Formats: sequence, C-alpha cells, structure tokens
Amino acid sequence: MIIIGEKINGAIPSIKDAILNKNEELIKERTILQDEAGAHFLDCAPSTSTDIEYDTMVWLIQLMQGVSEKPLCIDSPNASLLARILEEGWVNKPGMVNSVNEESNKCEIIFPLIAHTDWNVVALTCDADGIPMEASKKIDIAKRMIDKAVKYGVDLKNLHIDPCVMALAAMADSMNNFIECIEGIHEYAPEVKVTGAISNISFDMPARKYVNNTCIALAMKAGLDSAILDPTNVDMMSTIYACEALKGTDKNGRKYNRAYRQGKLGITPKK
Amino acid sequence: MIIIGEKINGAIPSIKDAILNKNEELIKERTILQDEAGAHFLDCAPSTSTDIEYDTMVWLIQLMQGVSEKPLCIDSPNASLLARILEEGWVNKPGMVNSVNEESNKCEIIFPLIAHTDWNVVALTCDADGIPMEASKKIDIAKRMIDKAVKYGVDLKNLHIDPCVMALAAMADSMNNFIECIEGIHEYAPEVKVTGAISNISFDMPARKYVNNTCIALAMKAGLDSAILDPTNVDMMSTIYACEALKGTDKNGRKYNRAYRQGKLGITPKK
Repeated sequence: MIIIGEKINGAIPSIKDAILNKNEELIKERTILQDEAGAHFLDCAPSTSTDIEYDTMVWLIQLMQGVSEKPLCIDSPNASLLARILEEGWVNKPGMVNSVNEESNKCEIIFPLIAHTDWNVVALTCDADGIPMEASKKIDIAKRMIDKAVKYGVDLKNLHIDPCVMALAAMADSMNNFIECIEGIHEYAPEVKVTGAISNISFDMPARKYVNNTCIALAMKAGLDSAILDPTNVDMMSTIYACEALKGTDKNGRKYNRAYRQGKLGITPKK
Repeated sequence: MIIIGEKINGAIPSIKDAILNKNEELIKERTILQDEAGAHFLDCAPSTSTDIEYDTMVWLIQLMQGVSEKPLCIDSPNASLLARILEEGWVNKPGMVNSVNEESNKCEIIFPLIAHTDWNVVALTCDADGIPMEASKKIDIAKRMIDKAVKYGVDLKNLHIDPCVMALAAMADSMNNFIECIEGIHEYAPEVKVTGAISNISFDMPARKYVNNTCIALAMKAGLDSAILDPTNVDMMSTIYACEALKGTDKNGRKYNRAYRQGKLGITPKK
C-alpha cells in the first residue's frame, strides 16, 4: 500500500496561515511528521489564489525537500504550472504529479514530460462533463487515460487512477461504485495503480473514522494500490497494517508486528 | 448483521467467579448491557465441569430471561445436554442452539428437535478428523450439514454455519480462508447464514482491535450474516454500523446515524 501524505495543503487552515505568514517551521514540522509516520510520497498543494500559486509551490518544495528524502507529489489543478515546476527542475528526485484528467488537455501536457521517467502521475476519472456517477463511465474515462499513457510512453505502473470517491451521504452506493472502479480498472490493466482520497467517503457523516477505516479496508481488499490520506492518523494507518496482514500481502503479519514494536499502532508495546 | 453476544461464558474469569459464587447481579448486569448494546441473541455458555453444567445452564437461563427479552443462544459442547434443555422447556422463546458439528451425531440429536420451529442453530465445520485447514474441506462439511438440515426439516435460514476462524498468527491465510468459506457456503445454499467468532482471528497478536475490526468488515463484505462477539465493544459495533452503511444494506446510513444520535458510536452526539 502506497501512502500519499495529504497534510501539506493550503486548503487546511493551519497550512493556509503558514503560507500567508511564511511560517517555515510549521511546514517543516508537518513534513517530518508525515515522513516519520510512513508516507511514501508527500503531497505539496499550495491551494492558493493563482497569482501566488507558483511562488508558493516553489517555497513549499524547497522547505519539504530540506527536511525529508521522501519524493514529493506536486499538486495543482493547473497542468501548465505543474509542467513548469517539472521543466524548471525544482523537484530533486522523481515524485508524483497530481493530477491530470480528461477535462481538457492535461494528459497531453503532462504525459510527454514524464514519459520514460520514474515520475508517477495521478489521473482523475472526470472529463468535460464532470465526474460521472456510474462506475462504468468512470472506467471508460480511465481506459482513455490508460491508452494515452501507453501512447506517450508513461510506464503503467506509475499511473495512479483516482476514481473520485463520492461522499456516502450524497450517494448511497459510493463504496460499491468505488470497488467496481477498482476491479474494472485492474481488469483492463492490472499493472495500473488505483488510488483514492479515502476521507471523502465520510463527508457530512458523524464519527467519520469508522467509515474511513472500513472504507479503506474494503477498498484494499478489492485491490486499492495507493491512497491519499493523513499518515499521522494512527487509527487509519493501523487499519492499513491490519488489512495487509489479513490479506496476506504482509505475510505472517511481520510489518504489523514491527509497526507495533515501533509504537505505530497507538498502543505502547510491552517490553 | 445478526449479533450473538458472547459475554455470558464461564470461560471468562469474572463469569466463572459469578457462577461459583452464585453472583446473580453480575450475570444480570452483563445480560442487560449486551441487550442494550444491540445483541440479537445472548449466548449462554456455562463452560463448567460436566457435573454442574446442567444446573448452571438452568440458573443462567432463568437469570438472563428475567432481565432481557432477547432470545438466548444455549451453548455447550454436549448435544445431549442441549437437547435436555430444549425438551424440558427452560427457554421461554425460540432462540439458538450452539453448536452442532460433524464429529459425532450432534446434528442427529439436535436437528429433529428444532425442525419446523423458529429455533436457530450454529453448526461448526469440523468432523471426526478435527477442523480441516483447507476451505474446500470446511465447505464440504458445511454441505453435509446443510443437506442434513434439509432432510430433517430445519429451515435453512435458521442454520448458521461457523467455518471456525483460525488465528492469523497460526495460519497466514486465515482471513482468505474465511472469505472463501463464506462465499463457498453461500454459493451452495444462499439462504444459509454464515457466522463466526471474529476475535479468534487476532489471537496472539498485539493491538487486536485493528485486526478484529478489519476482519469483520472484510467478512461482512464477503457475506457474513451473523457473528459471535462482544456487543459492548463500541469500536467493533461502530465498524459494523459503518460497514452496513458502506455496503448499502443500511441504505443512506440511517441506522448508522441513529446509532450516532443514541451515543452508540463512542462519540457524544452534537445537539
């Protein structure tokens, strides 16, 4: 399971403040916490007004790279900005581009830049008509992006399709829809990764952790490969460790037991 | 999801003490707690030496029936004792018999007594050779018991097959084995219920709650119909509520939201 740490995002009020006040320490601290909690990629999302987005992303990248060796996930709705960041070489090792979709020419902008490299890319299943409700339509969009990735020479194992998990409160079959997408995308291209922003599922529900934890367990069992989430959420990470053990991908629960001994399961290990 | 409350069992030290000291209050209190927490059946397991098992079960039944309307699940490895309890009419409404298996003639003793009634019965997938490791052999034993149930006139919707969940620490594919059994049994007889003692899966592991909660979510998604567990375990019950909402069996999360408003999700509801 590949964890993309979501905590450096200007949509989070404390990060928004840190960006406005140039609070370097807070950015560094959150970066280190996510790194130590086990994130494999660290999302870097200014989520600012467009006039300061480029400068903010450069500032964030430099701060984050200064305190962590983990690859970054550069995150913007603006594909041209992502392309500029890539081309100017601000990122010191191959990471992830978040995101492309089929709304406009985003795949056409990003795919050539990362073709034949180790860069990963997140691709959302939406097009000019928005995010479709039906899993079959999401899978169709995914197929188009997969075909494009092949055409441009993007290694399919670096392509993370995000089927845009909807809130269960708004769409009663959101979980089943998500599972159908995971299975349908893997059926078309087993080497492609499926990802998701898990906590979307529990939007507008109480006691969200139970819905989030259960969602990720069911999605992992269906074949989810990566997820955009808060790696410092001990309950969520413990559920992921438990699910890997139960699925058998963590043979004999070795990683689970190691996480316990390292105090990562929120329970002080016995000496 | 049908919950069989497991907390009145002489194998639990406090219940063992209560049986020895005739502590009626403790039995009543545990019964009421499980009832209020949402158990559908209340297990009644003396788990004593054989010389006092009958008397203890009669004592427990009377105490439990005195404070709860929930049907009881009379639980003993001794089918003749269960038959005697049934025949003497100690239980005031149809409940559950726990358990039969294919080791000896337990099905032959119990099935005729509950045929054409509303009594439920738990049937374990073991025979004279013990509990098989392979899911396919467990399913074969299940099929034999299902066929017997049909022959005797036991309504299949009242038959709960327990595929004997093994500890993950002892058997690395225990969860996948459990899922294979759930699906295989339902394939043979969709109306039969599959049940399980969930917490067995995490035996000898640390931070057991994550393994238990993830296990029940995956099992429910695979079609688990009932479970023997502690209904006063808020984390477990909240996971069950969340899973029903995610699966869509709790349409629009109505039961989930009601459980939250009733304070059953371990989080004080907002006014």
